[in-house]
Amino acid sequence: MGDTVLDRVRAWRRQHAAEVLAGFADLLALDNVTGDVPALRRNADEIVSRLRARGVEAEAAGPDGVAPLVVGRVPARAGAPRLGLYAHYDGQPVTPADWSTPPFEPALVGPGGDPVPFPGAGEPVEDEWRLRARAAADDKAPVVALLTALDALAAAGVEPEVELLLCLEGEEESGSTHLGELIAAQADRLAAEAWLICDGPVQQGNAPQVVLGVRGFTDLELTVYGPVADLHSGHYGNWAPNPALALARLLASMKDAAGQVTIDGFTADTRPPSATDQAALDAVPPVEAGLLDRLGLAAAEVPGSRLLERLMLPSLNIRGLRAADVGPAARNVIPASATASIDIRLAAGDDPQRLLDRVREHVRRQGYLVLDREPTEGERRAHPAIARIDARVGYPAARAPADLPVVGHLIELAARAAGEPAVRLPTFGASVPLHHFGQVLGTPTVILPIANPDNNQHAADENLRLGNLWYGVDLFALLLATPWRP
Amino acid sequence: MGDTVLDRVRAWRRQHAAEVLAGFADLLALDNVTGDVPALRRNADEIVSRLRARGVEAEAAGPDGVAPLVVGRVPARAGAPRLGLYAHYDGQPVTPADWSTPPFEPALVGPGGDPVPFPGAGEPVEDEWRLRARAAADDKAPVVALLTALDALAAAGVEPEVELLLCLEGEEESGSTHLGELIAAQADRLAAEAWLICDGPVQQGNAPQVVLGVRGFTDLELTVYGPVADLHSGHYGNWAPNPALALARLLASMKDAAGQVTIDGFTADTRPPSATDQAALDAVPPVEAGLLDRLGLAAAEVPGSRLLERLMLPSLNIRGLRAADVGPAARNVIPASATASIDIRLAAGDDPQRLLDRVREHVRRQGYLVLDREPTEGERRAHPAIARIDARVGYPAARAPADLPVVGHLIELAARAAGEPAVRLPTFGASVPLHHFGQVLGTPTVILPIANPDNNQHAADENLRLGNLWYGVDLFALLLATPWRP
Repeated sequence: MGDTVLDRVRAWRRQHAAEVLAGFADLLALDNVTGDVPALRRNADEIVSRLRARGVEAEAAGPDGVAPLVVGRVPARAGAPRLGLYAHYDGQPVTPADWSTPPFEPALVGPGGDPVPFPGAGEPVEDEWRLRARAAADDKAPVVALLTALDALAAAGVEPEVELLLCLEGEEESGSTHLGELIAAQADRLAAEAWLICDGPVQQGNAPQVVLGVRGFTDLELTVYGPVADLHSGHYGNWAPNPALALARLLASMKDAAGQVTIDGFTADTRPPSATDQAALDAVPPVEAGLLDRLGLAAAEVPGSRLLERLMLPSLNIRGLRAADVGPAARNVIPASATASIDIRLAAGDDPQRLLDRVREHVRRQGYLVLDREPTEGERRAHPAIARIDARVGYPAARAPADLPVVGHLIELAARAAGEPAVRLPTFGASVPLHHFGQVLGTPTVILPIANPDNNQHAADENLRLGNLWYGVDLFALLLATPWRP
Repeated sequence: MGDTVLDRVRAWRRQHAAEVLAGFADLLALDNVTGDVPALRRNADEIVSRLRARGVEAEAAGPDGVAPLVVGRVPARAGAPRLGLYAHYDGQPVTPADWSTPPFEPALVGPGGDPVPFPGAGEPVEDEWRLRARAAADDKAPVVALLTALDALAAAGVEPEVELLLCLEGEEESGSTHLGELIAAQADRLAAEAWLICDGPVQQGNAPQVVLGVRGFTDLELTVYGPVADLHSGHYGNWAPNPALALARLLASMKDAAGQVTIDGFTADTRPPSATDQAALDAVPPVEAGLLDRLGLAAAEVPGSRLLERLMLPSLNIRGLRAADVGPAARNVIPASATASIDIRLAAGDDPQRLLDRVREHVRRQGYLVLDREPTEGERRAHPAIARIDARVGYPAARAPADLPVVGHLIELAARAAGEPAVRLPTFGASVPLHHFGQVLGTPTVILPIANPDNNQHAADENLRLGNLWYGVDLFALLLATPWRP
């Protein structure tokens, strides 16, 4: 496709901006809080109906009681290569009191957050305006961008050069509990050269990016025990063992002052960055100085380290601590137990079950009896150190090779759509269960985000910058209209 | 007093047990969480009114906004020696969800915790029953025991041989902030041969005891800082420093695996036990095996150590930990801060201000900027490790000479009241601001506890064993009715 087609797509969407925004707003007005299956089914039905109206084969698939998977196929010229496009139509829960406007009453706002009236037919819109509503960015934006791209290409009389398979999930914000089964049930209809995961934001500063992977996730809760009940710290302090101190010592044994996890074998399975990964990594513009400033930090955990390099390693993060009380509610006790809640982010190569086993083994080596339940009276009397570990086996990371052919193609298209060079990011920090596509379908997965990085994802006043919507429209139009040979 | 008077006291309180328990329950139904001045004033007024009804001169003294000191005098025959009796009427905070019955709805329970109906007039009660409510043991029990002893002696027509001065505090569980001033303001009314501090429990195994000292107390809250707000652990985990881990490392640096505090100079001022202290200590029956069993422990912090010997050293106790959330509320964040609440028990010789300074200096030596307030933005950007220490300067320990004359007298009375030999204990584990009596009034202080050792003091389901209430009644009756020459 020459830029004439891109020019025609742009001219069409400028001309029809009012209509596109009205259609987007109607879709956002359908509340879509994750877990609310009846509401999500209304969203799925609306999306299926919009797809079919544009000649896309589509249906809402899956068992009753589960938010359906919208499966579709954009037909293309005979012999066209196949790519898959994933997005999700469910959204995070909302706390309306925290929002400037109700989360399911879409509002158009200027850069300062002031309301802007929705435009009339043919009226121009500004790239810096935002459409504010739950899921405007995460993750209905790609759905609307695709529908708009299809309209623009149809108006230009362009037949797709790529057959696009669709997989729109309704459970992403609930942990994608059924995604594996839903994909497996549709496996014969989902075979593609690669799956493109349209979720998450573009670069800080809004440069386009193609992301090769995500971190995996697993978590555990670690409790250590002292006396059977909280004890008076005067009568027994210095004599009865204190589990809060034991927990502190145990946690301190897991990561050293240099920020390195000291659990034996913690990074044993981690796939080191390949030379091309490293090259991609080196090419990403540094963000660290800005981050330190924004986060109010003097230094990173490993001073001077790059965020991206640290994301290529598995992390052990204490996400919460609890023992008795602090502040005005503090009582002078030796707590009966102390708990740390820990999440582990996996890098490519790490296995969630094996990492959890290594944590367990580490705790054992510190002299603990490790249980997955409360200790019995007999165990308490027999073992001076008892730890309970409640682990939840999560899912692995995913990382596509940086030299995968489709990656180069997408980098090119993204740069053309955005009018500036696109970043090839080795991994996202976030965890998304991308492994389903790899494990079930045997297909490489690549992330192709369109949303602005300041979209307030998961929070109040979620919004999509209109310029990012247009970037998505142009990108998807190019993806469909550009001949490509895998 | 011959045992005929003791017999009459016993007969009276057996006959009137129902009435005594009902009066006790009414007093416990007055909520008395330390710091709640209006509630505490209601308690003080009720106690004053009960004392006056028994011919005791009593008043609630002290400035507005402070839980009053109940000061009183039980008149005696002319020329009688004077002793002082201290107790406190405030209680620890409560977490009602942890209680089997609401903390301010007193319940009578059997030895297994099963409810027992309150007896009707003249009905017998069992020594092993417990009265469960906040402050049942700590420390309204002595107040009720004294009121009952006065009733029993009046019924027996016995005139006191000892003039008993009373000092009932309302701020003990908040650190006795005003006790020094309140005592100083009443100093001319509080001159006595010795002050008897009625607080804490008798021996493990319930043998009576007279205690020569207490530990001092001081406390602090230690907060370490990470990013300005909780951060997504996927996007930033492994790069942004985690304050929960930093806190764990800092706490682990304060006490080693052998149970020894590793803060420089922590025991430098501690007075070692004298030869008579050591002799008294050696004479105390060992309690450790029973304690380990009751507390569900395999070993003491220093395995094989004696409780009493550990109490002769200052302690550093983590009484609470907090960072973000654990359990179902846990979120995948790097917490913005992490806090430990710490109490320090002082041994004879230790100074609270000096000990706090040594903790601060230790934290500094671990590389922290130590503040006593929230860090500024500039401080956050300049210092990778910032700790906030909110210290409350407490009070020193107290320890009376083991050969003080009043001690021998009390040992004798306690043995008669209990019907078994009484223990002369060098120090309690608990902290009571005894030093005020010594420093302000120049009077020796000795502790005369009545509560059962398994009273769940400071915790949920606090309770007083009825047998211990009767011990208190008999002991105070003997104290008032037995002629004594200092």
